[in-house]
Amino acid sequence: MNKTSKRALSLALAAGIGFAATAALSAETLQDVLKRRNLSQQDLLAAAKTYVPTGKRDEFVAFSSGGQSGQVIVYAVPSMRILKYIGVFTPEPWQGYGYDENSKAVLAQGKIDGKDITWGDTHHPAISETNGEYDGQFLFINDKANPRIAVIDLRDFETKQIVVNPIFKSEHGGAFVSPNTEYIIEAAQYAAPLENKKFFPLEEFNEKYRGGVTYWKFDRKEGRIKPGESFSLELPPYSQDLSDFGKGPSDGWSFTNSFCSERYVGGIEKGRPPYEAGCSAKDTDYLHVINWKKAAEVVKAGKAKKINGHNVIMMDTAIKEGILFLVPEPKSPHGVDVSPDGKFMIVSGKLDTHVSVYSFEKIQAAIKAGKFESKDPYGIPVIGLKDAVHVQVPLGLGPLHTQYDSKPCIAYTSLYVDSQVAKWNYCEGKVLDKLSVHYNIGHLMTMEGDSTKPKGKYLVALNKLAIDRFVPVGPLHPQNHQLIDISNDKMQLLYDMPLPLGEPHYVVAIEATKLKPGVRYKVGTDSRTDKPHPGAVRAGEERTEKKGNKVTVYGTLIRSHITPETIEADVGDEVTIHLTNLERAQDETHGFTVSTYNTHASVEPGKTVTVKFKADKEGVYPYYCTEFCSALHLEMQGYLLVKPKGWKPTKTTLAKGNYTEADYKATVKKVADTQAIIDSVVAYITSVNYKDFPDVVAMVEDAFDQLGKTKGLKEKHEAFAAKKDWENANLWAEQIWQYQVKTADLGLRAKTYLEQNGAKKIK
Amino acid sequence: MNKTSKRALSLALAAGIGFAATAALSAETLQDVLKRRNLSQQDLLAAAKTYVPTGKRDEFVAFSSGGQSGQVIVYAVPSMRILKYIGVFTPEPWQGYGYDENSKAVLAQGKIDGKDITWGDTHHPAISETNGEYDGQFLFINDKANPRIAVIDLRDFETKQIVVNPIFKSEHGGAFVSPNTEYIIEAAQYAAPLENKKFFPLEEFNEKYRGGVTYWKFDRKEGRIKPGESFSLELPPYSQDLSDFGKGPSDGWSFTNSFCSERYVGGIEKGRPPYEAGCSAKDTDYLHVINWKKAAEVVKAGKAKKINGHNVIMMDTAIKEGILFLVPEPKSPHGVDVSPDGKFMIVSGKLDTHVSVYSFEKIQAAIKAGKFESKDPYGIPVIGLKDAVHVQVPLGLGPLHTQYDSKPCIAYTSLYVDSQVAKWNYCEGKVLDKLSVHYNIGHLMTMEGDSTKPKGKYLVALNKLAIDRFVPVGPLHPQNHQLIDISNDKMQLLYDMPLPLGEPHYVVAIEATKLKPGVRYKVGTDSRTDKPHPGAVRAGEERTEKKGNKVTVYGTLIRSHITPETIEADVGDEVTIHLTNLERAQDETHGFTVSTYNTHASVEPGKTVTVKFKADKEGVYPYYCTEFCSALHLEMQGYLLVKPKGWKPTKTTLAKGNYTEADYKATVKKVADTQAIIDSVVAYITSVNYKDFPDVVAMVEDAFDQLGKTKGLKEKHEAFAAKKDWENANLWAEQIWQYQVKTADLGLRAKTYLEQNGAKKIK
Repeated sequence: MNKTSKRALSLALAAGIGFAATAALSAETLQDVLKRRNLSQQDLLAAAKTYVPTGKRDEFVAFSSGGQSGQVIVYAVPSMRILKYIGVFTPEPWQGYGYDENSKAVLAQGKIDGKDITWGDTHHPAISETNGEYDGQFLFINDKANPRIAVIDLRDFETKQIVVNPIFKSEHGGAFVSPNTEYIIEAAQYAAPLENKKFFPLEEFNEKYRGGVTYWKFDRKEGRIKPGESFSLELPPYSQDLSDFGKGPSDGWSFTNSFCSERYVGGIEKGRPPYEAGCSAKDTDYLHVINWKKAAEVVKAGKAKKINGHNVIMMDTAIKEGILFLVPEPKSPHGVDVSPDGKFMIVSGKLDTHVSVYSFEKIQAAIKAGKFESKDPYGIPVIGLKDAVHVQVPLGLGPLHTQYDSKPCIAYTSLYVDSQVAKWNYCEGKVLDKLSVHYNIGHLMTMEGDSTKPKGKYLVALNKLAIDRFVPVGPLHPQNHQLIDISNDKMQLLYDMPLPLGEPHYVVAIEATKLKPGVRYKVGTDSRTDKPHPGAVRAGEERTEKKGNKVTVYGTLIRSHITPETIEADVGDEVTIHLTNLERAQDETHGFTVSTYNTHASVEPGKTVTVKFKADKEGVYPYYCTEFCSALHLEMQGYLLVKPKGWKPTKTTLAKGNYTEADYKATVKKVADTQAIIDSVVAYITSVNYKDFPDVVAMVEDAFDQLGKTKGLKEKHEAFAAKKDWENANLWAEQIWQYQVKTADLGLRAKTYLEQNGAKKIK
Repeated sequence: MNKTSKRALSLALAAGIGFAATAALSAETLQDVLKRRNLSQQDLLAAAKTYVPTGKRDEFVAFSSGGQSGQVIVYAVPSMRILKYIGVFTPEPWQGYGYDENSKAVLAQGKIDGKDITWGDTHHPAISETNGEYDGQFLFINDKANPRIAVIDLRDFETKQIVVNPIFKSEHGGAFVSPNTEYIIEAAQYAAPLENKKFFPLEEFNEKYRGGVTYWKFDRKEGRIKPGESFSLELPPYSQDLSDFGKGPSDGWSFTNSFCSERYVGGIEKGRPPYEAGCSAKDTDYLHVINWKKAAEVVKAGKAKKINGHNVIMMDTAIKEGILFLVPEPKSPHGVDVSPDGKFMIVSGKLDTHVSVYSFEKIQAAIKAGKFESKDPYGIPVIGLKDAVHVQVPLGLGPLHTQYDSKPCIAYTSLYVDSQVAKWNYCEGKVLDKLSVHYNIGHLMTMEGDSTKPKGKYLVALNKLAIDRFVPVGPLHPQNHQLIDISNDKMQLLYDMPLPLGEPHYVVAIEATKLKPGVRYKVGTDSRTDKPHPGAVRAGEERTEKKGNKVTVYGTLIRSHITPETIEADVGDEVTIHLTNLERAQDETHGFTVSTYNTHASVEPGKTVTVKFKADKEGVYPYYCTEFCSALHLEMQGYLLVKPKGWKPTKTTLAKGNYTEADYKATVKKVADTQAIIDSVVAYITSVNYKDFPDVVAMVEDAFDQLGKTKGLKEKHEAFAAKKDWENANLWAEQIWQYQVKTADLGLRAKTYLEQNGAKKIK
């Protein structure tokens, strides 16, 4: 080992030099590369604007809905690299989401009528706000198919809560947050009777089917929605669509679009024109204008009706209390987007070429003056379009969504049919620029573009399934998110990013520096409740309990062994395994599964997770760490032994290994040699300004943490040696070496980092 | 509409010009960008080597195991953009995998002991080969946790088959394919009794626990594994690990590594040293050398034993028949990789600094000469290390895997502890270059690097959880796949790619042009069986049948309506919905879900899919298309009406819309105006050489396909108008316009494409 150890050190030293040399030499010049790859100067500029070299970081983090994947996709801007998928409404096997008991408890909150719903359709993510600015603390997202909303904590990017909407059958127009995240809005989509499990035929659509909008109360301190303090408004059976909260002068109000205000009922199978014809026949639909602050007071005053146990302000009450107004909006609109200053609401009718800029001031003036042009069939006052509109601007075919620039009065609107992004001035009603995108754009997104302080710089166009842009991967294509530079007068297309899993509908992006996620949990934390996990134990406290037919394991994980390494059960036993990850190092996540028992846990440093199953099949079932946690991760294993009824052991000793005193002495020498290497690496590290590199400080801490685990093992192997038990003596000495290898691994990583990042000698 | 329509056209024309102008103007120079973003010339070179501009394509496609996600990840090289996730062993909600009946049937093949296993741990993907070269037809991947293997057809990137290993409890050393894909190899990992549900205590480990290796017979014509023609070898209870097939001179042989040949049984909870110490105590483990062609003959000759109904060649038979040999290999090895010419097998012991190059010729000579240094405890002949090794090369700490270059004798080996890639010459045993990577590398991959014709150019380092390289996203980090340029003498690091979901273990990459996936299915295909779906119908044949308590819908999907738009059931009915996507266009995938009934289907063009559920809750449940399929995708909706027992209708007519003759006339005019626009777009397209652009030809076909759907509708609305039924007259005319809008959308996309891609006037 001595030779090996020395080699390791010299190789490690060579690595730094090798790397520097590589950087200096390059066989191909830039011009060669441009020629070979057929890249233009414009391409090179775009490459330079998006490329993030190793060790540097992106400027913005985007949170995208995962559509039918039921998840949230996290990606970085401008490199457009996907950083994470967050499991929300659907199981996510990697993270054990839906495969361990703690995450199953979160998914179980999303049961509807007592039944598991393991599928979801996420649409609109929203980041929590403080004074209308993104604060990076929480993320909210809706499930359109099964009316639910979820809370994700951005300290650990985990889903903490799922809340079922008690009165809707679908919901599309959320999540959007009020400027201080008091409430999260969620609007119904397809009208249905509000009473749970109530049946009315389509012939009674106008009378018995209803839309609505829900205001979920959010408790920021607890990080949870409070269903009991939340309320809804009953709305007409127009298909309510997207919403937005007012801000600044319009704070206290919210705005919800609708389509199919025709209240058309299709039936192509019976010879009726389909929904698409009947729902887009009229020239206008309705923007719902709602005074939510007053609505909250009305609920407090006890004027709401309880439907399925939930407070609902009925339409007649809303009309009487002056909470609810309508404004016509052309034609089958999708997005409603409040301007950063809160003065305007921009709406596009997807079958109209105009975008309509509504003035909050004008709307308030009309309301104050009681100036309404009509009432809708349910008696809701309708403000005249011309009494509400600031300007209407012809933009192109299929306008959908609008986002804002950091420059005043500048907005960007997606044009679905034209497959373009329009840059325009909404104060003056002037088109400034247009850029063709790679087909059918839906939403679009600017950096913090729906907050009070948009950051400009980049825009992302969310285009539907990409047919000719990437190497083909079969009939189901990825989406195409295109990054556009908006820092200049003219927009410049920078990058095509395939979205490989799920269909994003909307994305929000925040400055990366605003996010302050944790790197580990306080030891023994149930990450789904943020509370101490009752199954957590510390090193040395591991145990297995058997009570009746229940086996409970209080175990721990550390590289590279699971404690316990054997779990015994009788066939038919219910087995519960609590596992605490005792590591501190950032990359020391462990995983856990038991062969064929269909369970998985991802256990990040400090976390405690529980898996549970019925040991209903006698036999031998290996379990192992599912993460590539260390060089010996394959050896991080154990056996679940499920014994047949009435089984009695005949052999009670394990086979002996064939170890001699010479083996033991060789191992002891290997340990001493390795310690010398560790000491030399430590000498190097402490000879430079390593404390100026937080990542290195963490690695060094981790290294000493590993080395610390050898404590007591020397005494142990020496005691066995004294008894001439060479197997135990040798293997416990070997175990010291295992910890040393991990220490050396970390030390070498730290050393490489320092060499590559210009550490300076301090002594 | 006239004004609107003209605007649409002029805007579309402007788009092309606008784009060109944007490309010419740019406010920031390249030097400005480098300065602002703090990029070096070396960074710029790397950016130029990896950036793929819009409309251009990557050179290689990589298939990566998704680890604990149970999926396969498809990404492109050199841009490192993820193109797709393929659902394999776990449900994948976006693609309806595990949520529709057809894909559930595939997942059900993976049941073990009659129970659903919805979690899996994919490790080693393999592309099918012809004469040892990747042919791009099929992909195979294993599940380590629950011993299974899956077949993915690369015509549609869908999982077609899952096969359960009948004798193992875990399996890690597959999939690898023989040079003509006759067999796929799969080796056990953790030893266990081979008989299903048989219990033996760990005290009988040496006698009753066994490893093994399975050779799955693949029928290329059917694209399925034939379990009945497959067989296994019983092996000692060493933890068999990775494998590889011989090729060229070594064709007919296969090689399987092992670790823990100590046969150590841990038990840290009982005071025993853990597995990690006991499994890595000896200096060597064993490489299994197997004559699989002869083994297949032995099975044919009836000399195999049936275990759980599967042919297993027992060790004594294998020894007697001269099929099985062992060679020592230093210490706890992981990869065994056969050189492109088939002459060498390279093995790294992760706890040894050397990489060992075994000579197939030497091994054969020893076997022929009967020159063995010993027998293992099970009587298997052991060839001496020096009689088998060509050369041993000291590379560094923690060598794991080797991949090959296109240049002869050049290989790359990952060094886990050193966090480096070593480039070396395995003929001469010389180290050529080293490159530091971003921590703890596991596998590595070169382009077609384990075939007989590696393509060189790029190498990807698969590094474990990335702690300091990307914007932090909580305690669970992405992996980091680093792209390295290997076209020059010195390796150059090009790109850091976060892997956001699942932990890849191994990746294989193929030249993109070798893949020939389809873009649509033959109408009415069940994509999971590749056969006609019995529930498929053509347009006009849609129907709903009710027999007893079973409701069966034979429906269709086309933008933007579902036929039928109403499904009626009595509470408690079993509802089966077959849906055929009638579209031809590549991007016209539709999706389907029913509110709260926990089902989802992704229906690509031509596909027929079935969803099924029990309508056990009375009430009204919207269903809708879950894909962003067109501007009116939100209107692609319908209602499932679940009627209470004994319910009788009281109202039998739907509410009438309030349409007049004037509405009808306006719609008819809108239709005529829109047709004029379509004609002008058609005139432009046919005025240029559009036939030279296959993507445009497809769009034009699709556009005419849409327009073709208006057939008969003119007669229909005119007939209703003659009867003064203005609602039906107006809405059917409106329906023509809906098809026209889709036609115009496609025409404008085609036009934009032509303008951006330099189409030339032909008349």
